[in-house]
Amino acid sequence: MDEKWLPLGFRWSGHHCGLKSDPQKPDYSLVVSDRDAVCAGVYTQNLVCAAPVLWCRERTPMQSARVIVTNSGNANACTGSRGNADTKAMAADVARELGVEAEQVLVMSTGIIGEFLPMDKLKAAAVEGVGQLETGAEAFLRSANGILTTDQGHKVAGTIVETSQGPIRIATMAKGAGMIGPNMATMLASVVTDAGISEADAQSILKEAVDQSFNCISVEGHTSTNDTVLLLANGAATDGFLQGEDLGRVRSAVVETLITLAKQIPADGEGAEHLIEVRVNGAASRDDAKQIAETIAGSNLVKTCVTGNDPNWGRIASAAGYAGVPFAVSGFRLFLNEMLLFEGGEPCEFSAKTVSESMANGDTVKIRVELQEGSESACIWTSDLTTAYVVFNSDYHT
Amino acid sequence: MDEKWLPLGFRWSGHHCGLKSDPQKPDYSLVVSDRDAVCAGVYTQNLVCAAPVLWCRERTPMQSARVIVTNSGNANACTGSRGNADTKAMAADVARELGVEAEQVLVMSTGIIGEFLPMDKLKAAAVEGVGQLETGAEAFLRSANGILTTDQGHKVAGTIVETSQGPIRIATMAKGAGMIGPNMATMLASVVTDAGISEADAQSILKEAVDQSFNCISVEGHTSTNDTVLLLANGAATDGFLQGEDLGRVRSAVVETLITLAKQIPADGEGAEHLIEVRVNGAASRDDAKQIAETIAGSNLVKTCVTGNDPNWGRIASAAGYAGVPFAVSGFRLFLNEMLLFEGGEPCEFSAKTVSESMANGDTVKIRVELQEGSESACIWTSDLTTAYVVFNSDYHT
Repeated sequence: MDEKWLPLGFRWSGHHCGLKSDPQKPDYSLVVSDRDAVCAGVYTQNLVCAAPVLWCRERTPMQSARVIVTNSGNANACTGSRGNADTKAMAADVARELGVEAEQVLVMSTGIIGEFLPMDKLKAAAVEGVGQLETGAEAFLRSANGILTTDQGHKVAGTIVETSQGPIRIATMAKGAGMIGPNMATMLASVVTDAGISEADAQSILKEAVDQSFNCISVEGHTSTNDTVLLLANGAATDGFLQGEDLGRVRSAVVETLITLAKQIPADGEGAEHLIEVRVNGAASRDDAKQIAETIAGSNLVKTCVTGNDPNWGRIASAAGYAGVPFAVSGFRLFLNEMLLFEGGEPCEFSAKTVSESMANGDTVKIRVELQEGSESACIWTSDLTTAYVVFNSDYHT
Repeated sequence: MDEKWLPLGFRWSGHHCGLKSDPQKPDYSLVVSDRDAVCAGVYTQNLVCAAPVLWCRERTPMQSARVIVTNSGNANACTGSRGNADTKAMAADVARELGVEAEQVLVMSTGIIGEFLPMDKLKAAAVEGVGQLETGAEAFLRSANGILTTDQGHKVAGTIVETSQGPIRIATMAKGAGMIGPNMATMLASVVTDAGISEADAQSILKEAVDQSFNCISVEGHTSTNDTVLLLANGAATDGFLQGEDLGRVRSAVVETLITLAKQIPADGEGAEHLIEVRVNGAASRDDAKQIAETIAGSNLVKTCVTGNDPNWGRIASAAGYAGVPFAVSGFRLFLNEMLLFEGGEPCEFSAKTVSESMANGDTVKIRVELQEGSESACIWTSDLTTAYVVFNSDYHT
């Protein structure tokens, strides 16, 4: 990461408070703005959603957020009314230490489902976490590590955007979704910026950026109970809210930064050996394109042939065919790592060895479907399916 | 199997003609009626469908079928106009040997996608296959073995139904769907009976039976290019078409027999260690119930927790929640092997050890969801996800 991304007026901390068994792993994370920040949120569509999701969803978009507090190791999901009270207490504990209102604290949780939070540990964590708040890259990375569960490493991205008022900064962090193991629920992410953005613009920018990024990744298609993406814009680098071209540049930068961040999730899918990019062009609508791309990306048969570096185009064509989107097979073309394998209902001549070697030698395997139904496109990123995934997700006992 | 199931007026054969590398494995199968039979068919919904599917779909329902010829080892899918000509030639070769019309021959293929059939081998196979036609259990099982690909063993079921005209017999065979390995496309099945059934009744009975059986199993949700179920009713045991109560009894028997047959498929899923039964009750509609059951059954996280005998109810509740069907979480109850684990949004007290042992000690793991939205139900059978599945489906090179 680059320290220049870090927005003005924010401090971070991350430490171990005892939710995870490994004392080396931070499980409590704070992101604090030194002034009221506009906050937008996008949440899981799962009906079975966690207490912190309910808390945040009721409050965003809002104008006066100060804190994102996240615990990892326990999702506080399926915990009923006691879970709701615990989320409120988490917010209140941090608010008290900082001298702000509980209403100004957003809460995220991730980890095991169906267990109650140990509130004594979280109360102590609020004191220690606030005491450790600092600016700078080290504090930011401690905070980014504090939201992880079984991720191999932290996931961060950021950028600087030039505006008519000078540079503004965007820094983001995330933890992995799905495929991340025993009972672990959730994709979490936060975006912080020192740009001033109105509530309505913040919500619109975040929604668009999530649609282009997190909604375009899949690991095993399991929408979790806790998925949450929050944006805090504190305006420390601008005079009021950005508008016009400035706002457009920030919008584009948030979208690009979240795409960079989101692709780190399937690349770090549990046991993943390849990132798979599925691109569908020439569809009648973006929804059609996305539906076909998601169906291909969701197929275990496609995932496992990528694991084995096998250019098994029949599985890919078949997955496209059962996606539920009408298209003419005569106009269907399939490329694997940019080599044409299947066209107009008939197999093409190609060297299986060459295609297989290109799969084995790259981190990313590119699947591209071309239709002749229209001009809309979509792209989905996913990971392959390995024995390590199955071992990780089955060798576990609640 | 029980020889008493075998309907009058049918002969069978199955032998190795050279499509599979192992000469011990039959890859050519015949089912022949000695008189014109009513034939109904139900086919894959995949847009990318194989040549034999196009052939059969154009012809059924029909009144004068005589033969089902099936080859395994090659799906004749994604083979364009040459594939269509090859299917027609397969039918013509058998018809010539039997002295019937090619139009009276239904064709099924299963195996690798995107390769052309070796027509010289299939021409010779027609001669040999017709020469080996016999009645009796041994011939029936040779035929049932001839349609398999990577199945561990044949899948057959049958029954006898008493009617006012005396007993009629129903015999069925199938091969596994999905999860059956490298490039292998397809679930195939056939139903033969010596009952007389009209075209319209045969089509209606088959559609209902497939909806209750094959459409309720899932392995990895991959609707293949070749899925075909055919019913032949030759009337050898009845005087004309059955009606009224007789027809109702046959309808019920076909449904029950196909459920018995269909459940053998996920039980023999590649690498499967458990059959998983997912039942959803109390839904507002059967579609809602089925959507929730399919989403649970399709979750890799649910499958892997069953593999590990882990009563990880959070994954199941979460899968129900993202199925896209609205329900009140307060009225949601989740049972695993009939033990209540989660109710009304809060976890229940239960012994994880007892539940885990019940999972480890049975072949079938039963997941039951109770909603309070209505009175409709659905049941889906699937298999768990093991490292053997991933090894089988990735350790392969086209």
